[in-house]
Amino acid sequence: MKKILILGAGRSSAHLIKYLLEHATAGAWHVRVADMDLAMALQKTAGHAQSSAFQLNANDDGQRMVEIEQSDLVISMLPAFMHTEVAQDCIQCGKHLITPSYVSDEMWALHEQAQQKGVLILNEMGVDPGIDHMSAMQIIDGLRAKGAVIESFESFTGGLIAPECDNNPWNYKITWNPRNVVLAGYGGTARFQQEGQLKYIPYQRLFERITDVEIADYGHFDGYANRDSLKYKKIYGLETIPTIYRGTLRRGGFCAAWNALVQLGLTDDSLLIENPAAKTWCVLTSSFLDLSGGKELEKTLQQYLQTSDVVMSKLKWLGIFDNEPLDITEGSPAVALQRLIEKKWKLDEHDKDMIVMWHRFEYRLNDKRHRLISSLVTPGEDPIYTAMSKTVGLPMAIAAKMILQGQLNMTGVVLPVIPEIYNPIMDELNTLGIQFKENEATL
Amino acid sequence: MKKILILGAGRSSAHLIKYLLEHATAGAWHVRVADMDLAMALQKTAGHAQSSAFQLNANDDGQRMVEIEQSDLVISMLPAFMHTEVAQDCIQCGKHLITPSYVSDEMWALHEQAQQKGVLILNEMGVDPGIDHMSAMQIIDGLRAKGAVIESFESFTGGLIAPECDNNPWNYKITWNPRNVVLAGYGGTARFQQEGQLKYIPYQRLFERITDVEIADYGHFDGYANRDSLKYKKIYGLETIPTIYRGTLRRGGFCAAWNALVQLGLTDDSLLIENPAAKTWCVLTSSFLDLSGGKELEKTLQQYLQTSDVVMSKLKWLGIFDNEPLDITEGSPAVALQRLIEKKWKLDEHDKDMIVMWHRFEYRLNDKRHRLISSLVTPGEDPIYTAMSKTVGLPMAIAAKMILQGQLNMTGVVLPVIPEIYNPIMDELNTLGIQFKENEATL
Repeated sequence: MKKILILGAGRSSAHLIKYLLEHATAGAWHVRVADMDLAMALQKTAGHAQSSAFQLNANDDGQRMVEIEQSDLVISMLPAFMHTEVAQDCIQCGKHLITPSYVSDEMWALHEQAQQKGVLILNEMGVDPGIDHMSAMQIIDGLRAKGAVIESFESFTGGLIAPECDNNPWNYKITWNPRNVVLAGYGGTARFQQEGQLKYIPYQRLFERITDVEIADYGHFDGYANRDSLKYKKIYGLETIPTIYRGTLRRGGFCAAWNALVQLGLTDDSLLIENPAAKTWCVLTSSFLDLSGGKELEKTLQQYLQTSDVVMSKLKWLGIFDNEPLDITEGSPAVALQRLIEKKWKLDEHDKDMIVMWHRFEYRLNDKRHRLISSLVTPGEDPIYTAMSKTVGLPMAIAAKMILQGQLNMTGVVLPVIPEIYNPIMDELNTLGIQFKENEATL
Repeated sequence: MKKILILGAGRSSAHLIKYLLEHATAGAWHVRVADMDLAMALQKTAGHAQSSAFQLNANDDGQRMVEIEQSDLVISMLPAFMHTEVAQDCIQCGKHLITPSYVSDEMWALHEQAQQKGVLILNEMGVDPGIDHMSAMQIIDGLRAKGAVIESFESFTGGLIAPECDNNPWNYKITWNPRNVVLAGYGGTARFQQEGQLKYIPYQRLFERITDVEIADYGHFDGYANRDSLKYKKIYGLETIPTIYRGTLRRGGFCAAWNALVQLGLTDDSLLIENPAAKTWCVLTSSFLDLSGGKELEKTLQQYLQTSDVVMSKLKWLGIFDNEPLDITEGSPAVALQRLIEKKWKLDEHDKDMIVMWHRFEYRLNDKRHRLISSLVTPGEDPIYTAMSKTVGLPMAIAAKMILQGQLNMTGVVLPVIPEIYNPIMDELNTLGIQFKENEATL
């Protein structure tokens, strides 16, 4: 019986483990789930006969190595910065590895070593990165095969709240890492390419330069730029494409209101608030405004930011004018804001999340210009079997099955941008309800 | 004969060395000027009989120590980060030291050691910091002696171009470190206090929240906030003051135009421009704008930033729309912008600079509120004997004289905020043409 080792049984592992257990009998494999928190591992394996759950400190090099040595395949759901170390162990023991994370430079450096040992290190196998690569490359390769010249590729993904649970004026809840939500784009300048020209968007303009994305039955979304869209030119073999743009989705109207927080200074992560334990939100917000001579807080803010009543109502709902404690003992305005959104944008017990992905291609074929839009909306099932866990976990689980069945015979550090990987996985995802809708038009 | 060692004969040392040479005979001292660039040291000492000029690599610990050992007093005009090392040497040899720079934490840590060795490490003895401390403390102590309660203290300093040489639309030239000009306030949030409330200004608002400063015969200036005004509460013994604000001066209208560069993203120092050697300003500026569909550059920028024709004319004059090379081989937009302003805001051969300092106090005395404005305008004499060199060098030179004459008997790490230091120095500065004008009114 083949042994699959899963390192990490957190939120994102639910669907991954479920799929592997469902296929354990047919595949004749044993699923070993390791986590620092044994209860979490036990909950996910749910006593399945072909599973075991055990406690593992992933930082314990010795224990980790013993477990990897005993396995046929390793799946790392550990924090991204730990993947390289796990990969080194896997190469040493000659075991294949799957991760859902972006490949770091250190990881790329292991490519030849992995090839020499006949080991496959399959990365970026989740949703973003993961399904975004696979769905885009399937279209790109298809268009190329038809002889089309791709002139523009825009791609947006968002982890959002399902419409039936969407009951706050921001139309947003925290379904993912809240610090990343607060610091999205912070302290840098995004770059992309438009009509052959390199383009930059500095942080202070990021949430103003929005792409309007409309998805049938779901309405409008705001797309804002990711840090670096240019690296995808090489990954996707689109070196000569004039326009390439990747971004993140929020519900329509979110970005205008978030921009108010950015402009005010509440996302600053560089200064420590003085005695934050004694401060209220009303005081912190006031500290970013000139209220000398007794000026009124909300009116002054609206004038200062020249913002709309709709944005003001969102800010008000969030509580930045309230006489409530910041509820942190130390940290920056960004830390205080994170604490606030963790409370205000918290998932309710029965809330479901939703993953939205949207690609827009423009291409030239037989002297005509065409537009192809491909979109995916995946709702979560419940607070454990989330859309995030489904879209991250299922591609990894299917890849694991393919490796164990000997269907993936490449080695080295690999991304799922080749047909041998993306075709069978996209096919199976389709049968599991992860279905893109396509929409084509001649321009 | 007493020996004064001056480390560094750069731009700021001209007046310092001149003063010390002028007083060398009366004081019976010998002035030793050391610089990496021997020609610079020779030029400044000009063959004076009681001087010597020699080459010194200040990073050569051994040579530096030999020179310090032979001296009675050391004046360090080296880059600020080197002062601590020099101070350690001075303490070891039992020699007094004067620097024009802010005291770092490492420097403060030497306080007791210096005291034990009977050594005075006198810092912040230039203009800002330096004359700002002395002129402010003279007023503060004077008001306190009268029984006044100080309610507000605002203080601004600027290194500018003299009116008769002010011939560009920005009314600014580079009289100081150009990188500091480009990165002023970058990547942080300024803090100050207003009517008892702590206040923050994030970078993206810094050049919009301007204090209008008017000085008789000189017109209007823009004052923008320095990073941290709060630390002066302790330094000046103003722990309970409701309003304290420190900032930097530019000519009126400068900040609105600089803000356009900030908002556009041209002061970003986080990303490397791709192949900057092959790029023009027109291309770099375009990269911050959505010009899809052939939109016109200048019109699009003006609309995007919603800025005035006056600002546009400044931007145009600066050359950010020109088809001229960036003239850098690598670096960020901030690096390119620095290169541009080094050319466009370059001092002409005969240009003179100007130091402007402005304090505004509000205080309560005998149940009445008063306002006291104290301002200083010091023009430079020529491109070598600049206002910067005068206002930095003369306070240091006078302090050196006082130390050698045994008039300053304190030890340890000291700032010029005590009457024993600031009174005689301010008196002598007054005779040397560095004169504050005061203006009082009852509110």
